[in-house]
Amino acid sequence: MHELVKCNGIKEGKNGLGIVVCEGNVAGVFTQNRFKSPSVVVTEEHIKNGFIEGIIANSGNANAFTGRQGYENAKRMCQLLAEKLKTDVENIAVASTGVIGIQLDMEWIESRFEKVYAGLDNTEEKAMAFAKSIMTTDRFPKFAKYEEEFKIAGVCKGAGMIHPNMATMLAFVFTDARFEAVELKEMLKNAVKYSFNTISVDGDTSTNDMVLLVAKGECEVSRDRFLKGLKEVCLNLAKQIARDGEGATKLIKVTVINAKSEEEAFKGARAVVSSNLVKTAVFGCDPNWGRIIASLGYSEIEVNEELDLKLLGYKDGCKVGEVELVRNGVGLGNEGVAREVMKESDEIEFVIDLKLGNGNGYAYGCDLTYDYVRINSEYTT
Amino acid sequence: MHELVKCNGIKEGKNGLGIVVCEGNVAGVFTQNRFKSPSVVVTEEHIKNGFIEGIIANSGNANAFTGRQGYENAKRMCQLLAEKLKTDVENIAVASTGVIGIQLDMEWIESRFEKVYAGLDNTEEKAMAFAKSIMTTDRFPKFAKYEEEFKIAGVCKGAGMIHPNMATMLAFVFTDARFEAVELKEMLKNAVKYSFNTISVDGDTSTNDMVLLVAKGECEVSRDRFLKGLKEVCLNLAKQIARDGEGATKLIKVTVINAKSEEEAFKGARAVVSSNLVKTAVFGCDPNWGRIIASLGYSEIEVNEELDLKLLGYKDGCKVGEVELVRNGVGLGNEGVAREVMKESDEIEFVIDLKLGNGNGYAYGCDLTYDYVRINSEYTT
Repeated sequence: MHELVKCNGIKEGKNGLGIVVCEGNVAGVFTQNRFKSPSVVVTEEHIKNGFIEGIIANSGNANAFTGRQGYENAKRMCQLLAEKLKTDVENIAVASTGVIGIQLDMEWIESRFEKVYAGLDNTEEKAMAFAKSIMTTDRFPKFAKYEEEFKIAGVCKGAGMIHPNMATMLAFVFTDARFEAVELKEMLKNAVKYSFNTISVDGDTSTNDMVLLVAKGECEVSRDRFLKGLKEVCLNLAKQIARDGEGATKLIKVTVINAKSEEEAFKGARAVVSSNLVKTAVFGCDPNWGRIIASLGYSEIEVNEELDLKLLGYKDGCKVGEVELVRNGVGLGNEGVAREVMKESDEIEFVIDLKLGNGNGYAYGCDLTYDYVRINSEYTT
Repeated sequence: MHELVKCNGIKEGKNGLGIVVCEGNVAGVFTQNRFKSPSVVVTEEHIKNGFIEGIIANSGNANAFTGRQGYENAKRMCQLLAEKLKTDVENIAVASTGVIGIQLDMEWIESRFEKVYAGLDNTEEKAMAFAKSIMTTDRFPKFAKYEEEFKIAGVCKGAGMIHPNMATMLAFVFTDARFEAVELKEMLKNAVKYSFNTISVDGDTSTNDMVLLVAKGECEVSRDRFLKGLKEVCLNLAKQIARDGEGATKLIKVTVINAKSEEEAFKGARAVVSSNLVKTAVFGCDPNWGRIIASLGYSEIEVNEELDLKLLGYKDGCKVGEVELVRNGVGLGNEGVAREVMKESDEIEFVIDLKLGNGNGYAYGCDLTYDYVRINSEYTT
């Protein structure tokens, strides 16, 4: 990321402030929550002309459900950076994440702004500082990149409240490729559909989600090649978010193949990966495939009792084992082997073959653990 | 319940077997899960003619995803009771709850059947034995009754996997009133809509849910008066299920008033009460109203930023306190007081006034706790 943009950030306790200077065409995808943070509203307004010069982001406070004052504070954050860059306030995007319903501590933001701005640079260290500045309950900063003759690099934060159609998730993706804003928008929507919208941590969608894609325009590249790279970067980031779900110990992938349609395959996979009962079973290394069947059954997609179901386990990206659990609708009694594979794995994949059509889809999530409860019952205390 | 029917049951470890002898007109409401247990399929077939003479139920095994063999086993269970009652197998209903994907232990069922049947009686003790025989992770048996010149009494089991549109929940309601099966069906659907379908424990819906209503036909009563009593019994049972959600320490009620429509009010309330983030916040006695707002925002109902939100706490049915959290969209900073009320309460109600129309609705659920994770990560182990 540091090859593409200058950035910096600081984190003091729960509060963080980050800045990216990134002149280029821009596209964004935003939360579908009916209560949008004013920070989201302001950014949607500001990127309408398809161009930005910088991003300012804060963590610790979502600036959500903060009304007129929240809107003015989001504008003020943009203003701070716009003045430095000698540009219009509308060329700045703003993003926030954290607690809902409390006004931003503008005094803290303004008093730290100078220092963060002064430290802007295109080094790896500064990229890390930015990544850390937007973290909330994340356990690690999240980067991904793709390189051919053109570059794509991104950073994101996630952890809790992640769900299809976006959730307290901020992702910023940068490229040196050249595209019009309208082209970027179309490709970003496509990439988000197959990446960020396939992950689920706790089923909640946030007031603040945002994915921005900024293209500096230095490099010609075909749309097909760019889209391939963009999807790869977005999926990489999305998987990191799922793996870092609050309190998670295992990444869960659910793959549905041969459903009636691609849409049904994705919908079914999402229902399974979002099931609290499936998530707790994975935490307990319990190959309780009845819960997978039950959640698929209420997903409202067309199902087939003659399905096949298998479990694959991975550790550090390497396959640990593969166990058939159900063939043609009949349980094979392989739970003992499956349990051992689960114990050794940090990623569990369930592959469900519905034998109904050609639709394939997938979803990512994580297990539901004691730490999820701990983190979320203590959050504001 | 024992005034209305003869029953009995036994529980040995995870396995339970219960019998009710109840001649009368019958109506049922069943799971919407696409993978229905053969026990559900058989009962749906058997009550088509609107009449039954008995119910046989087992716990420990859901007889779900068990195919042709599962169907035959369910039929066999009915046959056992039909032979004793000297009636057709189609006059018996069957219900199952427990683990999915394993064939019923018919040897256990058949070997215990005689003893349970021989012990049938209309005493309180036998009603309790039946209630306990259908329990799985339930912590207490669940009864409710309503009496005027006519009687309605019911028993249910619930705990995990409870969600609107039914979930591993079995409820059996009996009355001495006289109604045709078609009238019973209509009233039962109405009562279920405002009771069992307003509760959510973990968002999963099961393969096995069933509510049966059996009317002995000894007593004339108007539909209005009967429906009032039926709703009361069903809501009472539903609330017991919500309160007994796996690992729950607090009952949560979410009331949405003045929404655009009644349907939107119920939908919004359900989204809030189902949110893992709201559920964990209640467990932590954290009046984190931002999470309530966020979950309402993704419920897809029409919302209004100028809403009012208050919290009410109850202990043993008595009000502990009432705290305004948000007025006209502005947080009032009353979290400290609210936290104290939450700590003293075993039931928390959030009342959200949307100020948009005349639609009122509610939903019941429970908090999400360490014990939920423990119970569900260890279930089959």
